[in-house]
Amino acid sequence: MKLIEGGVCAAKGFKANGIHCGIREGKIKKDLTMIFSEVPANAAGVYTTNLVKGAPITVTKKHLENGIAQAVICNSGNANTCNADGIEIAEKMSSLAADALGIRSEDMIVASTGVIGQPLNIAPIAKGMAELVAGLNENGSDDAVAGIMTTDTKPKQIAVEFEIDGVICHIGGIAKGSGMIHPNMATMLVFITTDAALSAELLQKAISGDVQDTFNMLSIDGDTSTNDTCVIMANGMAGNKLIDSEGPAFSEFMKALNTVNVNLCRMMAADGEGATKMLECSVCGAQDIRTAKAVAKSVVCSSLLKAAMFGADANWGRVLCAIGYSGADLDVSRIDVSFRSDAGIVDVCRNGSGIDFSEETAKKVLSRNEIDILVELNSGDASSTAWGCDLTYDYVKINGDYRT
Amino acid sequence: MKLIEGGVCAAKGFKANGIHCGIREGKIKKDLTMIFSEVPANAAGVYTTNLVKGAPITVTKKHLENGIAQAVICNSGNANTCNADGIEIAEKMSSLAADALGIRSEDMIVASTGVIGQPLNIAPIAKGMAELVAGLNENGSDDAVAGIMTTDTKPKQIAVEFEIDGVICHIGGIAKGSGMIHPNMATMLVFITTDAALSAELLQKAISGDVQDTFNMLSIDGDTSTNDTCVIMANGMAGNKLIDSEGPAFSEFMKALNTVNVNLCRMMAADGEGATKMLECSVCGAQDIRTAKAVAKSVVCSSLLKAAMFGADANWGRVLCAIGYSGADLDVSRIDVSFRSDAGIVDVCRNGSGIDFSEETAKKVLSRNEIDILVELNSGDASSTAWGCDLTYDYVKINGDYRT
Repeated sequence: MKLIEGGVCAAKGFKANGIHCGIREGKIKKDLTMIFSEVPANAAGVYTTNLVKGAPITVTKKHLENGIAQAVICNSGNANTCNADGIEIAEKMSSLAADALGIRSEDMIVASTGVIGQPLNIAPIAKGMAELVAGLNENGSDDAVAGIMTTDTKPKQIAVEFEIDGVICHIGGIAKGSGMIHPNMATMLVFITTDAALSAELLQKAISGDVQDTFNMLSIDGDTSTNDTCVIMANGMAGNKLIDSEGPAFSEFMKALNTVNVNLCRMMAADGEGATKMLECSVCGAQDIRTAKAVAKSVVCSSLLKAAMFGADANWGRVLCAIGYSGADLDVSRIDVSFRSDAGIVDVCRNGSGIDFSEETAKKVLSRNEIDILVELNSGDASSTAWGCDLTYDYVKINGDYRT
Repeated sequence: MKLIEGGVCAAKGFKANGIHCGIREGKIKKDLTMIFSEVPANAAGVYTTNLVKGAPITVTKKHLENGIAQAVICNSGNANTCNADGIEIAEKMSSLAADALGIRSEDMIVASTGVIGQPLNIAPIAKGMAELVAGLNENGSDDAVAGIMTTDTKPKQIAVEFEIDGVICHIGGIAKGSGMIHPNMATMLVFITTDAALSAELLQKAISGDVQDTFNMLSIDGDTSTNDTCVIMANGMAGNKLIDSEGPAFSEFMKALNTVNVNLCRMMAADGEGATKMLECSVCGAQDIRTAKAVAKSVVCSSLLKAAMFGADANWGRVLCAIGYSGADLDVSRIDVSFRSDAGIVDVCRNGSGIDFSEETAKKVLSRNEIDILVELNSGDASSTAWGCDLTYDYVKINGDYRT
């Protein structure tokens, strides 16, 4: 398996594009994205568990009931959520895109991201559709990812090449996500494409399983979005034998999928709203996986720890505090904690109590832009990793006046 | 029932004091507090559910097993938590105080607040004890509250006078709490005194019950502290007939206790670390109390909403989002939301969808320093209130470098 260029267009038969159509007045950024497979693809998705759901999710879920999709249409700048006419508008987006592509509206995946509770004007989307479709191309992933960004400061895309039974396959994805990120059973917008052949059923199993260890272990601010959507399309154009049951081929595919998703998670965490540092909490020695996950996620979610990391302050008591309220049943007196970055490692807690360490070394370690928080529970073999970011002045600034 | 002055000294027979003894080098604030009852009092407490517990909590719990206490000793500047010698130091604090007062160490309540994971030096406490005890007086509540403050910017104290069977009784409390506040079964440090006579069993019932509607509905930053402690002492000096069962007298007492605790909650919320605004979320029309509480607390805990309130941005979509991920089972399409302050009221959402409102009016309403977020679920009769504060640059600043 190796990392390659191309994002969602790395897999055979996928084209993409992103344009500016004018969703939000006065904003000139790209705001409309399309991803298209030359042939219908098996498809699967996972969505937010928030009871307040974006209208596009309702439409996409219905369209994916048969496990088949051929294209994605997505706008940024407006979430099309909590609007009385939301579903009607989402269906309209879908049919406009399908008509322009000459495919069935039922084979469209629809998504929206941006402000909640403001009516989405379909006019600029209708106006831009011809240009969007005309510009679809095999190097279009850069434009596609630009079209789904909101407060993101960096595009997030990744692709890998891997082999199944001697056949070269590809899988790639794009993601957006910077604020309102605390996915539960899904994530912000993630679109993944692969040319590997998998049945829709196995594809659903793959994505539902992998998000538990990837996007569901990511938190920027503890707010589970209303529009979290992660969909994957597999068009089979790599030519491998259809994967329709678990086994070595499925395992190879899962490894590739996990690589894509972990990379996208890390990119989202590093680009959290206002973030200056990516935090990765690795928990090991847990008595079971549930404990490991609860502890890892509790640590990266602590506002106090996040602020301390912004200040490069080795305030490890906040790590212990977050472990203590994680809800996990554990023996506090066995916990060891260390901070690590490319500047070194510093041990700060052994057996649940503080140990002497050099504040100077700690400051150096914590002043880097990727910080690992290592937690050893010394109580078993289970481990887990969670991702987050620091809490900064800019997070407050961005969210103090998001709508204007 | 009426509000009166005097804090923890408003009830008969209680004296208090707070001095600077030098817990943290270079800090000249008061850092050692004592509250003393002339006679042994019935006492009860509730404590943090965090598995990582401050050593003083272990000692206090043991001392309160018999339901009797006569004095409180509390330091600020160091939490005496995650220290190998923590319990030994807490016991020492207790016996030094008891010896100076001439009472039994088992009748002492011990508490500490401040940095986690740094050894607590007993020397300054031992040195200051004589001065602390010598200065105990009936107007000492101001000094006592000053001694327990950490990042608090304002003292938090309250007292009320009320009647039980024609006998005038008093109840008063002091509290500290500004960061690491998301109490669960208890709160930060709260010390309450009353001259009403209640059995220890009823006192425990009273405090355990009331915190469910008061301190457990307060969140500054979602971090449940390791040292949350709320204790109450009832010395019976008002002369009412001992309350040892539920009934009208107990109800009167509960009303007075709730008034004290709600006021302390509001003071803590308003003085949340870095806060410029107090947020109060009132949920009504819920199908049951569990739903009302889950919704109210989810709203005041949302980082995104907290930042929007800082910016006086009527981003009500974030209220809906927080309701949606609260875990409560509810019908989103029935939800109404309004924002209210002393500058007026603005309705922003009806039946789960946005409605037209004046951004100018909304800005005016949200620019005040106490904001009510009114949520009507239109699904039943249950209601609940939660308290919090906005998320500001100063929260990040305070917590980016707390230890120095």
